[in-house]
Amino acid sequence: MTSFAAIGLDHNHIYGQVAELLAAGGRLDGFATEDEAQAKTFLDAHPDAPRRSEADLLADPEIALITSAAVPSDRAALARRAMQAGKDVLLDKPGVITRDGLAALRAAHAETGRRVRVHHSELESNAAAQTALRLVRDGAIGRVIHYFGTGPHRMGNPDSRPDWFWDRDRNGGILADIGAHHIAQFLAFTGETRVRITSARTACQGAAKGFQDMGDMVMEAGDAQGYARVDWYTPAGMPTWGDGRIILTGTDGVLELRKYVDPAGEGVGPHVILTDADGPRRIPCEDQSDFCARVLADARDGTETAIPQDTAFHIMEAGLIAQELGEVKTG
Amino acid sequence: MTSFAAIGLDHNHIYGQVAELLAAGGRLDGFATEDEAQAKTFLDAHPDAPRRSEADLLADPEIALITSAAVPSDRAALARRAMQAGKDVLLDKPGVITRDGLAALRAAHAETGRRVRVHHSELESNAAAQTALRLVRDGAIGRVIHYFGTGPHRMGNPDSRPDWFWDRDRNGGILADIGAHHIAQFLAFTGETRVRITSARTACQGAAKGFQDMGDMVMEAGDAQGYARVDWYTPAGMPTWGDGRIILTGTDGVLELRKYVDPAGEGVGPHVILTDADGPRRIPCEDQSDFCARVLADARDGTETAIPQDTAFHIMEAGLIAQELGEVKTG
Repeated sequence: MTSFAAIGLDHNHIYGQVAELLAAGGRLDGFATEDEAQAKTFLDAHPDAPRRSEADLLADPEIALITSAAVPSDRAALARRAMQAGKDVLLDKPGVITRDGLAALRAAHAETGRRVRVHHSELESNAAAQTALRLVRDGAIGRVIHYFGTGPHRMGNPDSRPDWFWDRDRNGGILADIGAHHIAQFLAFTGETRVRITSARTACQGAAKGFQDMGDMVMEAGDAQGYARVDWYTPAGMPTWGDGRIILTGTDGVLELRKYVDPAGEGVGPHVILTDADGPRRIPCEDQSDFCARVLADARDGTETAIPQDTAFHIMEAGLIAQELGEVKTG
Repeated sequence: MTSFAAIGLDHNHIYGQVAELLAAGGRLDGFATEDEAQAKTFLDAHPDAPRRSEADLLADPEIALITSAAVPSDRAALARRAMQAGKDVLLDKPGVITRDGLAALRAAHAETGRRVRVHHSELESNAAAQTALRLVRDGAIGRVIHYFGTGPHRMGNPDSRPDWFWDRDRNGGILADIGAHHIAQFLAFTGETRVRITSARTACQGAAKGFQDMGDMVMEAGDAQGYARVDWYTPAGMPTWGDGRIILTGTDGVLELRKYVDPAGEGVGPHVILTDADGPRRIPCEDQSDFCARVLADARDGTETAIPQDTAFHIMEAGLIAQELGEVKTG
């Protein structure tokens, strides 16, 4: 079994990352945080995981992979330290929120050969996305010519959010953060490795003063076109955190993903609707990602099977570009 | 009863326009076409309508309104002749496909005081759109901060399409044509009168050689953001011509319109799903537009109640701008 550890538990995405690494056969050999409340919560979920210092974890030759959901602004430096200690790294998104952070990761990879990837939960942890990915790869809708994605998120009680959530310099902005899922998904569904962000917007519509609560971006990859909108406006009565959708238009059919809920329909859960020459029908969502298994294997074997490092860096950079474009005020 | 006539039957939208004008209390006093097959089809639907010449119809002082679905490239000149003959005009979209055409209509309006409007069937003839419009105006989702719309269209048998359908110089391009619905709807749902098209694309993905079969555009109106995608890729098995959607994100809720079909759900028909603090639920789609009644009243009374002429021209111009932007090849 490949050993991994968690360092930085600030976003609760860490629980998904750890659960998926465990399910993929990884062995959790410890975690590190300086926050007592976070440590207690983590131990509630993983009572056998030893709490250790970051230095101790990084010095442990058994540990091949570090996974982290630290405050976004801290992730690049942490990842670099881990790579320099000979570990692969799996980060919550956004992996980086600045050009300097990205440059540091590129340098660390060049220097150490270690890999650093971002875990895009909306792609890797969602059975609708994984099922649709299989269908697309099997040619169910022909060539994908348009991707449309939404990522509405629930704000919840603003008081429950940590300081860094509200701070553009620590959260990275809405497109670098929750927009990044759609860059990863657009490339996955088109099978392309290069995306171009042709325009982007961010807006503060009032969910909280000065907070970017709406963003969208226009994308191109190969001959395919894409668009994504993300926001913090999940209605209070929505039975889950967000009614994320993807509509894939293909030359021979359409796939609609209601990824977390089919509102006023079949309810909470992953849903895929395929419409082709045979008409509309629902496809059971049973597929699961092998991303975390590959991340573990890569960390152990020195391979690059989960995602090419070059593509992983490219997706991180595209998130930064989208955010930069989205913050240019025009007109 | 206000008298109207139909001149130019090239697109079958004319049947919707005439039916709605009749339902609104208009009296069909004749039609004109030089195409024998079109005349026969029209008489099948309206056996009591006299076939007359355009000149005869325009000279008839009883007739207050001319409605037309002539070949798009012919519409502006026809509308101008009708206005100069003292008639109001209701055009199928696209009302105009060139800047010169728009200038001609503006001049005709300035000269005659007569009104020329475009009938956007996806807004005016759809019960989901009309029902959602009432809900939005009643404040059901708070302030609309994002509009997302799709307009997939069925190509059908390419051989069934007339020559002008394939000719960019006669059809006006995909955004000026079927994209225009979304400009009108974006303004209707936001309650704004000015739209800004900030980026747009057109693509020829292969539905037919050189034919624009995919287009999208990014819009702004007031503080609201919008995006629309239109295409000619309705899957062969879709039980209607297109799975047109609108998702309106508001500060207090979300409205989803499945305007013509709820695929693998409740099937063909108009569907509206409202999600707010009370959770997701379906809203019966029973509302109807009074647009055609107002168009008739305006033609009779010299009023401007259906839509301000300035706004109508602005929407036409925005369609041209979208098309122009969408044909600039970048990268």
